[in-house]
Parts: sequence; structure tokens; C-alpha cells
Amino acid sequence: MTTWLAGLEERARAVLPAPVLEYVAQGARESVSTAEAVASWSAFRFLPHVMRDVTDVDPGVELLGRRTELPWGVAPTTLQRVVHPDGELAMARATAAASGLLVVSSNAGTPFAEIGATGVRWWLQAYLPADRTLAEPMLAGAVEAGAEAVVLTVDTPVVGTKYAVGESIWATVDPALVRVNFGPGHEERPGADKATDLGPHDLDWLRESTGLPVVVKGVLRPDDARRCVDAGASAVWVSNHGGRQLDRAVPTAAALPDVVDAVGADAQVYVDGGVRSGLDVLAALASGADAVFLGRPPVWALAEGEAGVARLHAELLAETVEALRLAGCRRVADTRDLLAAPALPAT
Amino acid sequence: MTTWLAGLEERARAVLPAPVLEYVAQGARESVSTAEAVASWSAFRFLPHVMRDVTDVDPGVELLGRRTELPWGVAPTTLQRVVHPDGELAMARATAAASGLLVVSSNAGTPFAEIGATGVRWWLQAYLPADRTLAEPMLAGAVEAGAEAVVLTVDTPVVGTKYAVGESIWATVDPALVRVNFGPGHEERPGADKATDLGPHDLDWLRESTGLPVVVKGVLRPDDARRCVDAGASAVWVSNHGGRQLDRAVPTAAALPDVVDAVGADAQVYVDGGVRSGLDVLAALASGADAVFLGRPPVWALAEGEAGVARLHAELLAETVEALRLAGCRRVADTRDLLAAPALPAT
Amino acid sequence: MTTWLAGLEERARAVLPAPVLEYVAQGARESVSTAEAVASWSAFRFLPHVMRDVTDVDPGVELLGRRTELPWGVAPTTLQRVVHPDGELAMARATAAASGLLVVSSNAGTPFAEIGATGVRWWLQAYLPADRTLAEPMLAGAVEAGAEAVVLTVDTPVVGTKYAVGESIWATVDPALVRVNFGPGHEERPGADKATDLGPHDLDWLRESTGLPVVVKGVLRPDDARRCVDAGASAVWVSNHGGRQLDRAVPTAAALPDVVDAVGADAQVYVDGGVRSGLDVLAALASGADAVFLGRPPVWALAEGEAGVARLHAELLAETVEALRLAGCRRVADTRDLLAAPALPAT
Amino acid sequence: MTTWLAGLEERARAVLPAPVLEYVAQGARESVSTAEAVASWSAFRFLPHVMRDVTDVDPGVELLGRRTELPWGVAPTTLQRVVHPDGELAMARATAAASGLLVVSSNAGTPFAEIGATGVRWWLQAYLPADRTLAEPMLAGAVEAGAEAVVLTVDTPVVGTKYAVGESIWATVDPALVRVNFGPGHEERPGADKATDLGPHDLDWLRESTGLPVVVKGVLRPDDARRCVDAGASAVWVSNHGGRQLDRAVPTAAALPDVVDAVGADAQVYVDGGVRSGLDVLAALASGADAVFLGRPPVWALAEGEAGVARLHAELLAETVEALRLAGCRRVADTRDLLAAPALPAT
Ligand SMILES: Cc1cc2nc3c(=O)[nH]c(=O)nc-3n(C[C@H](O)[C@H](O)[C@H](O)COP(=O)(O)O)c2cc1C
Ligand SMILES: Cc1cc2nc3c(=O)[nH]c(=O)nc-3n(C[C@H](O)[C@H](O)[C@H](O)COP(=O)(O)O)c2cc1C
Ligand SMILES: Cc1cc2nc3c(=O)[nH]c(=O)nc-3n(C[C@H](O)[C@H](O)[C@H](O)COP(=O)(O)O)c2cc1C
Ligand SMILES: Cc1cc2nc3c(=O)[nH]c(=O)nc-3n(C[C@H](O)[C@H](O)[C@H](O)COP(=O)(O)O)c2cc1C
Repeated sequence: MTTWLAGLEERARAVLPAPVLEYVAQGARESVSTAEAVASWSAFRFLPHVMRDVTDVDPGVELLGRRTELPWGVAPTTLQRVVHPDGELAMARATAAASGLLVVSSNAGTPFAEIGATGVRWWLQAYLPADRTLAEPMLAGAVEAGAEAVVLTVDTPVVGTKYAVGESIWATVDPALVRVNFGPGHEERPGADKATDLGPHDLDWLRESTGLPVVVKGVLRPDDARRCVDAGASAVWVSNHGGRQLDRAVPTAAALPDVVDAVGADAQVYVDGGVRSGLDVLAALASGADAVFLGRPPVWALAEGEAGVARLHAELLAETVEALRLAGCRRVADTRDLLAAPALPAT
Repeated sequence: MTTWLAGLEERARAVLPAPVLEYVAQGARESVSTAEAVASWSAFRFLPHVMRDVTDVDPGVELLGRRTELPWGVAPTTLQRVVHPDGELAMARATAAASGLLVVSSNAGTPFAEIGATGVRWWLQAYLPADRTLAEPMLAGAVEAGAEAVVLTVDTPVVGTKYAVGESIWATVDPALVRVNFGPGHEERPGADKATDLGPHDLDWLRESTGLPVVVKGVLRPDDARRCVDAGASAVWVSNHGGRQLDRAVPTAAALPDVVDAVGADAQVYVDGGVRSGLDVLAALASGADAVFLGRPPVWALAEGEAGVARLHAELLAETVEALRLAGCRRVADTRDLLAAPALPAT
Repeated sequence: MTTWLAGLEERARAVLPAPVLEYVAQGARESVSTAEAVASWSAFRFLPHVMRDVTDVDPGVELLGRRTELPWGVAPTTLQRVVHPDGELAMARATAAASGLLVVSSNAGTPFAEIGATGVRWWLQAYLPADRTLAEPMLAGAVEAGAEAVVLTVDTPVVGTKYAVGESIWATVDPALVRVNFGPGHEERPGADKATDLGPHDLDWLRESTGLPVVVKGVLRPDDARRCVDAGASAVWVSNHGGRQLDRAVPTAAALPDVVDAVGADAQVYVDGGVRSGLDVLAALASGADAVFLGRPPVWALAEGEAGVARLHAELLAETVEALRLAGCRRVADTRDLLAAPALPAT
Repeated sequence: MTTWLAGLEERARAVLPAPVLEYVAQGARESVSTAEAVASWSAFRFLPHVMRDVTDVDPGVELLGRRTELPWGVAPTTLQRVVHPDGELAMARATAAASGLLVVSSNAGTPFAEIGATGVRWWLQAYLPADRTLAEPMLAGAVEAGAEAVVLTVDTPVVGTKYAVGESIWATVDPALVRVNFGPGHEERPGADKATDLGPHDLDWLRESTGLPVVVKGVLRPDDARRCVDAGASAVWVSNHGGRQLDRAVPTAAALPDVVDAVGADAQVYVDGGVRSGLDVLAALASGADAVFLGRPPVWALAEGEAGVARLHAELLAETVEALRLAGCRRVADTRDLLAAPALPAT
């Protein structure tokens, strides 16, 4: 038997065209890191506590100083409107209903104002162009629409090569469904390409130009995490982009503990990649993450519309609460010494 | 060729209905811990002693100060009368004949008095309800029927989710075959649900209200073991409930040594989960357990009635004695340095 | 393509009856140690030396003070006359021609005098009976027939259980082909069973009653090795009896280094189990063995008669010499630091 | 989907006769080291840097003091003219066009002068004969034709045994396609066999008789690397000959770091074996190699002629540049701390 959660991708397969499915599933090159992500969380073993009062379990966390009811957020993903006509709006509504957090890609196909109007708590994810000033209107639009933070993705100076089977998604996508928060002709302007020279100064600039806290997404090294926090980042997001950038990048499950050691006292640390179940959530929290982000699962759930995303949050919450309870943890902070040492086979 | 012992589950398959078989075999969630239990004992390698006199080998052990002829006991399992009409009585008679120890589930389908009347040495396993006083009559009944200890199961604040294929056992079970040692209407009373707030104080209460030594079942962490012993437990039973509660819980084979280190000088330490052969018994004893408990094997054997359980004890004893002899060990205490270091692949 | 050496068992399959093949191949219980033996040598990786003069390579070794041209000997095996009518004599002649060493089982089907008459260098392997005096005539016969040492097998207080598929060899064997060096009716005498109380004193007794150096076969632990050497053993033979006694015993490849550390300065150390190729021989020598012994390969080769055994020695010698040369080693003593650390996955 | 690079061997399969394909692919004995080479690079995991300016990425390296645009060279391989009529000339032209480095086997089927005339930067690889003076004319010819260094292969005192399936290549090769840079009748002369007594003195002799820097190919041990450098080697080339000499030799990926530690401050260190992709190149550079060499891939590419080799360089360069960029490295020197520790499962 397979659970509703475990069947997400398979059900999406019945609904979505092949190029869309492939776009969502694919990893860079041989997809080693993509595949390993899922396996690396399930390699953790737990040492549950017993004889603790777990009558009331609270899975909620504080993210940048404000509480959400879910210990995960929705990671930014492009092409949500290609997956479902309601795209980011369905994602936003379902996430708002669950009192969760949504991170919206700057490639989104829905105007920020409409997303903000759903009442969801949201953060903007941004790629910066070579000419930073070209991003200013988009950033301003997000601020105006209520984004509470900016997530700067730093692992994508160029897009990692993927080996497409069959027709590429980009050959078929309706341009009206992508990057609608940029002015017309944006991509043709000189300097519109992704910046290849991001640096700590960009964090300053982002924070000052938006007035928002900055989260840096795509960090795997403790030294880089330190640089980010020293440059004013409020949080560091450990990610290898779902295995879509440098293949054979270390699993985030393996990278996380050193990043937490390096900056956990001074900033929040999030993690994404391969989280698929409540036990995975528990493993990530036990490894020291302040929260987890989900990339592909909400996209597959979106194939079933707002209801799909709502059910994703509900099912994962039920699994997570059961896992916390059986692990003898009343809240996320109680999970920190759950892992059997050594937690993970060296990679 | 397969041995009688190795063929236990397969033969049960020919006799028992599918939902019963599934109920016995299943683990929580993905059954990772259930599967790993068996593999983890067989991963141990031995460094046998030679040139020791092994003419007389004594496999017996002292359990809570009284000798049994077998270095294992029968772990508590629900639904024995569903597996075989003679249920707990067949289990008791065969175990008594082997001078072994039986642990009876508080969910048993046979009155304690009948079990006690077989003359078997037995312990009561209890789940405590939210309202502890509701358990008092059942506990008193067990004391009266000669239970020599109470085993408190602490790993089940809620029952771990299992994914049933086909009809669930609970849809078909005759209620007369379960929990007969509680008064009628017990489950409908407020406070009858399993307690979610067990704590050390419950050990005190149990010991005082029954006058029996208390064993805590379901401990995996050395710190919890310490808490139990400090609260007066006579023994700690390392168990992940056969993988039926928190999936991805550490194998008991991996958890055992640290628990022995933490409390072995002050209390007895037992272990269960995945023990299937004399070599598994040897590995568990060599890891420091004072005794081993068997969950599923006696249930499968029970499908062949009292004779099945008797043969289980006999076959396993023959294997264990041969293993001790070939390992150069005259008694259980001689097994302690048999394991090649590192004993177990880190998990 | 498979080599002549690698094809040994398969070719034997075409010649020998099933029960004989099974008798030779089988291990105790699940045959874990038997299977692992072969795998454990091939898990070693070499760090070959370069720019050393390997024009002349000498694979010979000194065994108990006398040189043999082969760095291995033939281990004792029962039922050689069942494998081939010429049995021990074919084994002896081929081994003599290669200037090798033969260890003859006390269960041999050929009179010691006939074996000695071939001119082969040979050692007697003995199991001692409960009543030691019953062994005296057999020991005296071996001394008279020129045995140069006694190998006492200490890992067999009882014979490890094997799971036979089909008819057991013992149901079919002609008793005239086994144990011909004992007087008639030997096995029926009281005290003729294998001793279960072997101890260091037996080494003394053996040495004194035969006047020969004593080798102890079946040692896996450094502490036991030490006891043997302190009791006067001239050599210790690291063996788990080809996996035929205690299953899940540590691979000899894993046990060897600690034994060499413990007694290598004071006595010779041999090893057997799973050696099948020149690279395996190299790995065993590099691990510190003074010589290697071969159990099953000579038996399979014997299915092809004296010529088979001769070819076994010749092929393995060619492989070993090539391996030594490519490893930059002129002699066995040069192999000691060839292994990449850590040499072997922990078991 | 498979990439052009990943499909190299398969496409060669459509063009080359079986014995040629087998000659190229084969490893010694069981081909363990050959197979493991590929797997060992892909076992590395990266900790990419972020927020570094990777606008301009320079993959070029200095080899013996002179810059090449590629961080790899073409390793010496015999029988190139059997693979393609243009043989070494096609290899040279394509490599020259890419501003790369070619190492030419002394077994080459093309006169050195013709190779030199292509303008390629090249080094001579030499096996020394027992009678060193027999090599002098060949060495002189190489010097005259512009070879910039001599690579002495030291892992081949004898050729490692391979198990050929079907007809051996040597039964079919036209002798005019091999070893054309030796005088006629060279192989029949006494002393023409490969030297089995190479030593440090040969490095002196080579350097003096050719006036060229000497590179030692086939080193796996740090102590040997040290001996080479102390004897005047300008570089040490970590290689197990593509697994074609001592099978079960350690993977070069495992051997490299210790060699770099031992001599990296005093000499260059190269590595070959199993490098098949840009990520493999990155792993080797990150492990401390000054450059990588490719054996089989250029041979398979040569089946498609000069264009094939040209495309090999171009595709691998694109992959390598992308890998460097995504790893946050502007140049090879930036790669040194990219590997997650422990980098490689112990072997
Ligand atoms: C289809 C898809 C589109 C993505 N688009 C973006 C994006 O626009 N911006 C971004 O920072 N990350 C993007 N990512 C990466 C995700 O934010 C996230 O890091 C990753 O998917 C996490 O791994 P998971 O999918 O295993 O949960 C995308 C991932 C996928 C699968
Ligand atoms: C069918 C079944 C029913 C069980 N019922 C109980 C129970 O009522 N009380 C309890 O403490 N443990 C119960 N357990 C857990 C066992 O006591 C024991 O911890 C576990 O089965 C040991 O693992 P093993 O089956 O691999 O030997 C049950 C296990 C099984 C398989
Ligand atoms: C068929 C067979 C018979 C054996 N008989 C004896 C024996 O009589 N005495 C003894 O000490 N060991 C005996 N052994 C064990 C061997 O001496 C040796 O320890 C073992 O076979 C080594 O492993 P290998 O077969 O993998 O080389 C026997 C082994 C086999 C396979
Ligand atoms: C077909 C073939 C021929 C080779 N001939 C030579 C040679 O003549 N001289 C030499 O030093 N190495 C020779 N080698 C070894 C290569 O130089 C190199 O060390 C090895 O191929 C590297 O491994 P790779 O093939 O996995 O890249 C040969 C290798 C192959 C595959």
C-alpha cells in the first residue's frame, strides 16, 4: 500500500504532460544529488525519548521572529501556473489556510499583488541580474505586496545542465505563465542575465533597497554561511537546489550540522532537499534546522489544485505530530539530540 | 533447505488468515526498523574462544533473581487467541514445560487466573490508561494470579501508524478474544485511552500498588534507562516494539551497549527485536543483555499450537547451546567479549 | 572467460556426486562465514612498490624452520578418497613434486606409511578424543611415517550443524575410506568422541608424546594465540574451519592482523579460509601470515587426480609470482606494507 | 538520455572490431581496479563555494612550467593506428587545436617526426628495455621531434595477465602499426625485453641522455613518490595503468592525496584512471592533482577520427568549466578544499 503522500508524484503523472513532469523531477547531470537527497534523510536513525508528557505537541516554529504553525515552508519553484492554472494562488491559499509560509519565485507566473491578496505569509525568492538595478522594480513590487523577507538564491550563477528526455519544457511553455513580475522586454535588456559575481555586498544592497531581512539560499559550506551572516543575513538556507545545479554536491543532510555549528547561534538555519515525510521532517529538525522547505512535493500536490496543497500540509502535519509524539518531543526544540551517532554514513 | 525455525513464518502462512498474518508481521510506516532488526543481529561477527572446557554448557539465566532455563522469554503480544484458540494457555503450557518465562499482554484474551493455573512463571505487561485508577482491577487480578513482575510499556503514547494491505485485523476480531482482564465497558470510560504522560512517578505507583518489581519496556536511550533505574525500575527492556511504533528508530542491537553501560551495574537489561536464531541470541547476550525476548516467533509457532511453541523453545535451545559451545562459552556470562570490534556498522 | 583456477569447483561439479560436492562446499548454518571468506580477501587493495628489482622473485617460505617452495600448504580435509580413489596419495605426490607441504587429516583414508612413502613433506592434523590415550597409536603411526609436526584442531568440540540438501554424504560413504589410521572399533570405545575440554596442557602432552612441534589450528583471538604460544605452540593457524564450525565467526582476514601482533614475534602464524587466487595469497601474506593454507581448492583439484593437484600448485604459483613482481616484492618478507589502510571494511 | 561523452564507448562499439574493443576496455585479472576507477571519482561529494565572482573561469594549468588550456592531457596508449588509420596524427592534430598536451607511447605506430610536425605539444612515454642502450635511438628520435619531457612508465616489469574473450588482438595486429620508432629487428635483440630492474638511477640516466625533464608514471605510494622526486623527477604520475597491471591495486583517487602530501611541494603530481566527465576532472583537481590524464576516452573518441578527439576535448572542457563555475572556482587552484570529508569511502 502506498500513502497519499508517497503517491504524490505518481498521481501527478496521471495529470501532467511529460515535459512538465520531467522538468519538476529532473536533477543536474546524472541526478546523483537529487536521488541521494531522499535517501539521506531516511538513513537517519532515531533514539526516541520515553516517559515524557506528549499530550500536547506543538509542531510550530518561529521564522524570522514570527510564528508559523508548520515547521516547514513551501520552497520557491518556477512554472506553478504550468502545473495548474491557479498556480501560485492555489499554493498561497492552501498555505495560508494552514498558517504556513510561502516562498515565491521571482520567476512566478502570478502578480505579487494577487499572491499578497490571499493573505498568505510570504517571502520573495530572487535571482539577481548582472545589472542589479534591473531587479529594483520587481523587488519594490514584492515589498508592496507584503513580502516579509527576500531570499537570495546564490547557487545559480549559470543554470546547471540537465539531460532532457524528449521535448524540453521551455519549448512549450506559454511565456505569459512565467516571470510576470518583470516589465515587458526585461530579458532582452543588457545585464538581465543572472549575475555571476554575487558577493556579500549584494546582501547589504538587498536589505537596504527592500528594507526586508535577507535569507541566503543555496549555502552548503560553514565558511560561506559565516560570510553571509557577517554580511547581515538573517538566515542561511542549506540547499543544493534539489540537485539541480552542481551534481554530486553533498547531500544537505550531511552539510547541515556544520552550518548549524558555524552560524546557528547568530542566525536561523533552514534546509531543503528530499524531504518527503514526517520522519524526514523530524530528521531535519533533529539535525538542527530551524525549519524545512519543500520543493517538489508542493508542486506535485498542486497538480491536484488548492485542495492538493491543503492535503499535503495536513497529511505531513499529521505525520510530523505523530513522529514528534513517538519520539517523546513536545516541540521542535526537543528534537535536537534524537539522532543516533554517527547519524549519517559519511558521503 | 530451510530449518524448522527459519520456516516458522512460512508455515504460519499456510494456517492463518491474511489479516492475522499481516497484523503479526507489520511494522510502522515503511517498516524500516522492523526489517533492520533481523539484519542487525546477523551483522555481528564473533571471535570464538578455543581450548576452554565446554563439556557442560549452561544457557540458563537469572531473571529478577530467579533462574530460568532459557536465556529468553516470550514477549507480550496481543491477539494470541486469534492466532490459535488455545492462545495464551498454549503459550503458557509450552513455556512452563521448558522452564521459561512468559510475559502476558494486558490485552490478553485469556483470564490471568487461567494462565497462572498452568504453573508457568509469568510477568504482566501493562499499558497504563490516562486515568491510572482504571488499571487497578486488572493489576490486582494479575498479582492474584501470580504475576511476578509488571512490565510497563512506555513506547506507545499513541499507536504507530501502519499501512494495512487489505482488510484490517481489527475489523474482523471477535472482541471476546481481547482484553478480557478488564471489566465490561472499560474502553468506553473516560480516561481509558493510553496515557500520553507517563513518567518516572508511574513506576513508583506501579511498584507500590502491585508490590511487584517493575520492568520498563521500550527504552532505547541510556539517559532514559538511567531515569528508569533511578525511579526504582528493576530492569530496563531495550525495545523499539518490533518496529511497530516510531519507524527509523535505531535497531535495538545498536542501542543496547550504551544502555548496558549506563545502568547494567544497577539493574538488569533485556533486549528484543529481530531475534530469530541461536546465533542471534548469542549476539544479543554478547552485547550485554541479561536476557532476550521473542515477539513474533512464538506467535508464528503458536499457529502450530502448544506443540509449536514447545518446539520453538527446543530448537532455539539446541541452537543456542551449540553456539555457546562453539564460541567457547560455558555460560552466558562468558559471552561478553565475543564480538569483533567494531561490532556493528554504524547506523 | 574463466581461468583454470576459477573453474575448479565447476569442473568438479561435472565429476563428483552431489553429496560429495555439497560436503566440500558447505558451511555451518547459513554459510555466512564460508561465503564471506572469499569476499574478504578480495576486499583488500594494494599499494604496489615500483622501481625495485624484481628480476628474481622467490615465493618460498620457511615453515617451522624448513623451507618450502610454495608460500602455501594443503590444509587437512577428510574424505579425499571419496573425491578420488588415489585420495591422499595423489595429493601427496603432486605436492611433493611442487616441493610443498601437506597436512594430513587424522580422518584420512590412506595409511600414514603410504603417504610418508611418497616422500612428501607432511604434518599430521589431529582431533583429540575425550580419552587422550586412545589417540596414542595413531600419533605414533604418524611419527613413524615421518610427520614433521602435529596440528591440533581446536575449533571442533562438536561438529557445527550444516543444513544438507538431499542425501547426506555420511549415509553413502564407504567406511573403509575414512579414519583408516585408527584401530578397528575405535569409534565405539568409550572416550572416543571429540574432546570438549581441550586446554593448553594438551599442547604439552602432544609435544611430549610425539616429540614433534605443535601447531594450533582454529585460533581467531589474540588472547588465545598468546595462550597457545605460552603453552609451547610453535605456530598458530588462524582459521574458522572454512566457515564449517561457528557461523558468523569473524573472517580470518579480519582476525589475522591482531594475532600476528600478539604472537608473531614468538611463533609462526598461518591463515586459511577463502584463498582462491594469487592475489588472495598476496593479501594474506601482506597481512602478516607466514604461510597460507588451502582447504577446498586442492579437494576440487583432486577430482582431476594427481594432475589436477599438480596444476593447482603450478597455476597458483604463476599467479603468485606475477602478483609479487607487479607489487614490487622479491620475497614474501617484502609484502608486509602493501595494504592500503584501512585494509578491510570493519566487520 | 545519454550524453555524447557518456556514449563514447558505445559508439566505438559500432565501429571497431571486437578484439580491438576488448583490448581497450580490458583490465588485468578480474578487472576490479579498472571498474573501481570510474566509481571512485563519482563517489566524491562537493562542498561548492557560493558568492564568488565566477564570471571568468580559467581551466588552464601549467605543466612542467608551460601553460596548456586544458587541465588534462592525453595519456599514452598503444595501437592508436589500429583504432583509426590516422592514429597518433589525428590525436595530435585535435589536441594541438585544443592547445592541449599529448603523451605518445613508445609503442606508437606513427614516426615521432610526423607527430612533432603537427605542432602539438607532446611528451614521450617510454618503457625501458633490460639493455638500456637499446632505447637510445628511440629516445634521440623523440628529442629531435620536439618531445618536451620523457614519461617513464614504472608499473610494468611484466605485462599483467588479462583474460581475453575470443581472439587476442595481438594475433591480428599488423606489425607495421606498432613500435615504428624502433629500428627493425629491435624486439629480437638480447636485452630488448622490458627491464625488471628499474631504479632511481634510470631517472638520472634518462634526464641526462635526453636533456628533458622526467615524469614517473605508475606511482601509487608516497614513499615511492619521494624516491622519484629525490632522484630528480619533475613530476609523479599517480596511475595503476588503468587497472591493467596489478589488479586490486588501490584506486588512484584513494592514492592521490598521500602522494600530493609527500611530494606536492617539490614536484608536480598528475593522476589518471577512470576520469570520464567534467565532475570527475573536478574531483581529481580538488584532490590535489596538478593535471589529469585520459587513457581510454581519447581512444574511443579516435574511433571517430580527429573530429572525435576534438569533440572529446570540447565537450569535456564545457563540462569542466561549468563544474568549476557551479563550484565557485575561478581556476584550478581554487578547487583544493571542495571535497566533503571524508572524501572517499576507505578502500
Ligand atoms: C521545478 C522546480 C523549480 C524550481 N525553481 C526554483 C526557483 O525558481 N528558485 C529557486 O531558488 N529554487 C528553485 N527550485 C529549487 C527549490 O526551491 C528547492 O531548493 C528544491 O526543490 C528542494 O528540493 P526538493 O525538491 O527535493 O524538496 C526549483 C526546484 C524545482 C524542483
Ligand atoms: C503481533 C504483535 C503484538 C504485540 N503486542 C504487544 C503488546 O500487547 N504489548 C507490548 O508491550 N508489546 C507488544 N508487541 C511488541 C513485542 O512485545 C516485542 O517488543 C516485539 O515484537 C519484539 O520484536 P520481534 O517481533 O522482532 O521479536 C507486539 C508485537 C507483535 C509482533
Ligand atoms: C571438505 C572439508 C573437510 C575438512 N576436513 C577437515 C579435517 O579433517 N580437519 C581439519 O582440521 N579441518 C578440516 N577442514 C577445514 C580445512 O582444513 C580448512 O580449515 C578450511 O577448508 C579452509 O578454508 P577453505 O576451504 O576456504 O580454503 C575441512 C574442510 C573441508 C572443506
Ligand atoms: C588501450 C590502452 C593502451 C595503453 N598503452 C599504454 C602504453 O603504451 N604506455 C603506458 O604507459 N600506458 C598505457 N596505457 C595506460 C594509460 O596510459 C593510462 O594509464 C590508463 O589508460 C588510464 O586509465 P583510463 O583508461 O581509465 O583513463 C594504456 C591504456 C590503454 C587503455
